[in-house]
Amino acid sequence: MKVLILGGDGYLGWPTAMYFSSRGHEVTVVDNYYRKIISEATSSEALLDTPSLPVKAKEYKKISGNIINYIIGDLSEYNFTLRVFKEVIPDTIIHYAEQPSAPYSMRGEKEAIETLNNNLNVTLNCILATNSVVPNAHIIKLGTMGEYGTPNIEIEEGWINIEHKGRSEKFLFPRAAGSLYHTTKVLDTDLLWFYVKTFGLRVTDLMQGPVYGFETDEAMSNEKLYPHFHYDDLFGTVINRFITQAVVGVPLTVYGKGGQTRGYLNIKDTLSCVYLAAKAPANKGELRIFNQFTETFSVNELAEMVREASAEIGINVQIQNLVNPRKEAESHFYKPAHTGLFELGLKPHLLDNKTLIQMIKWISAKVDYIDKQKILPRTAWNKL
Amino acid sequence: MKVLILGGDGYLGWPTAMYFSSRGHEVTVVDNYYRKIISEATSSEALLDTPSLPVKAKEYKKISGNIINYIIGDLSEYNFTLRVFKEVIPDTIIHYAEQPSAPYSMRGEKEAIETLNNNLNVTLNCILATNSVVPNAHIIKLGTMGEYGTPNIEIEEGWINIEHKGRSEKFLFPRAAGSLYHTTKVLDTDLLWFYVKTFGLRVTDLMQGPVYGFETDEAMSNEKLYPHFHYDDLFGTVINRFITQAVVGVPLTVYGKGGQTRGYLNIKDTLSCVYLAAKAPANKGELRIFNQFTETFSVNELAEMVREASAEIGINVQIQNLVNPRKEAESHFYKPAHTGLFELGLKPHLLDNKTLIQMIKWISAKVDYIDKQKILPRTAWNKL
Repeated sequence: MKVLILGGDGYLGWPTAMYFSSRGHEVTVVDNYYRKIISEATSSEALLDTPSLPVKAKEYKKISGNIINYIIGDLSEYNFTLRVFKEVIPDTIIHYAEQPSAPYSMRGEKEAIETLNNNLNVTLNCILATNSVVPNAHIIKLGTMGEYGTPNIEIEEGWINIEHKGRSEKFLFPRAAGSLYHTTKVLDTDLLWFYVKTFGLRVTDLMQGPVYGFETDEAMSNEKLYPHFHYDDLFGTVINRFITQAVVGVPLTVYGKGGQTRGYLNIKDTLSCVYLAAKAPANKGELRIFNQFTETFSVNELAEMVREASAEIGINVQIQNLVNPRKEAESHFYKPAHTGLFELGLKPHLLDNKTLIQMIKWISAKVDYIDKQKILPRTAWNKL
Repeated sequence: MKVLILGGDGYLGWPTAMYFSSRGHEVTVVDNYYRKIISEATSSEALLDTPSLPVKAKEYKKISGNIINYIIGDLSEYNFTLRVFKEVIPDTIIHYAEQPSAPYSMRGEKEAIETLNNNLNVTLNCILATNSVVPNAHIIKLGTMGEYGTPNIEIEEGWINIEHKGRSEKFLFPRAAGSLYHTTKVLDTDLLWFYVKTFGLRVTDLMQGPVYGFETDEAMSNEKLYPHFHYDDLFGTVINRFITQAVVGVPLTVYGKGGQTRGYLNIKDTLSCVYLAAKAPANKGELRIFNQFTETFSVNELAEMVREASAEIGINVQIQNLVNPRKEAESHFYKPAHTGLFELGLKPHLLDNKTLIQMIKWISAKVDYIDKQKILPRTAWNKL
């Protein structure tokens, strides 16, 4: 495959690049360090100061012998995007190039406008450039399980058949997201669906749950090749945050009652899922949707698991219920389908004590770099 | 009411301004002449070269004694929008400020990017400025019946209760639009719904069908106060186009088989609907949706009605089926609900021979200004 990864410096973008490259595929990554810039601008630096793409590509070549191409630039500019597509002529496009933080998108007017414009323009540019340059290429787009919210009915895999007054129709499963960030992903799906119908593009939209972990086989324990690990309230996902809180000795910050339930997955499974989707592309004119997670947990369950794993290695962990800065149901029905990726061959890495303890130990070695100021929520949904 | 009309120079914006003003309300309109600029840039000038807002406001004051305030500027810029809201402190915001042409949005990459950015940014800015300056104000947003597309089930008024595997939930009626323009309106609805939930805004989203006509009572037959009348393939709505084609002696351009069915309304009814919605605002935290049309017709039925009305005054009209430049079902089930606005008191002006003949006569007097080059479709959905 000739793979173009949009957002190739991100938490998932860079590990994906190495994953495909190490399996013999030609990989080009594109990024403008936008996430890095806004995380620094909001005092939300990652735990490790990971190097720039040229350095990572060099390090990776040293240990693997493989070349990952990189292009630095802003994919929300169409002319740049078009130039990249013409240069690379990809057959597979993996689109991660979005502002990825829900709290950042709710921080203020500026951040809301930035998130909407970045995310929607990159998606539209990706669609238009694909149609113009490589109309048969397969777009793999990272969506989020958060697009669905927490409806009172079972969540199907992207689509639903609705029977209504004696007639029936197949629709996109109705979306109802809980942050502007998640809403931009809903809009992405709407946009993709319209253009798939109109241009006959082939698209896989992956509704992914929160990801945890940082270690992937391809990094071969070279920390320069690890992805950005965020533990702060803006860019840190909940499991990564809890483990850091355990290590640094502050209570785990459960927002509200903690009954919020989501589907989670290990970063290694993200890589497998994207790879499985790429190996079996969607058909022309198909918007294929998979729900990408391996198991569901409530926030309380996660906090309890982190407490237990910590206790096993002698760390005593407190759990603290904070006033929820978000607007979300704190106890709700949740039953999302997720069979598609398993049918493609996904062998999941489930969340167990061993995994948690490995993460806790790795972060313990970096404890001096953790800034406790970054842990408590700094953004409330109703303030803006 | 203190009314702020976004897009106040448009086909519906200016008549709405006069309608509210003549009923004793304080009206400010905002526009940057974007539609006028892009219609000129695409050789799609309106039939009459209507004057700028300052001139229209003067003419209107002369005949009515009422003042309509105007502010010229780009509402896709947040700082400008915020300044307008702070200056006006509206209690009612009517948002028409969008790129309104489906074919324009499908013309090329530039136009697609422009449409997405203009429409989404104005909507987001309107939401953020309302929340920041006048959180209790009522936003009336013009959506489109085209958001729903033509599903195989009855279209409800904005929302649907879905029973699924023994449980039930109320959702936004699933949208599936047929052009990028219509898709931006779907995205608007998604955005509005998210922020209504989050900020507790009060919003009425009007899913409007194609509008016809140009004469409204408030213009008092002063043609300088008429809205832009477009008969071209880009900005002209179908009834306005057909009447012009009848007058100029070219065949009525039916796209494809002509079974495409939509809900239509007279421009006078648009004004009543918006006024009725404004007088009975949505509740705090409510996204109220009305389907805004008075009757449904297929394109073939409309062509036949225009042919009959023309025949009555001695004009012989041909009908021509063109290869459809759009991607749409040409014969389909269509049963949309539209009771909400009638319950608020709408007294519709239905489409009859008399109305058609009045329009035909008025346009006949302008026949010299009609440019036949603008009539045939210049944009195909699958080209871009």
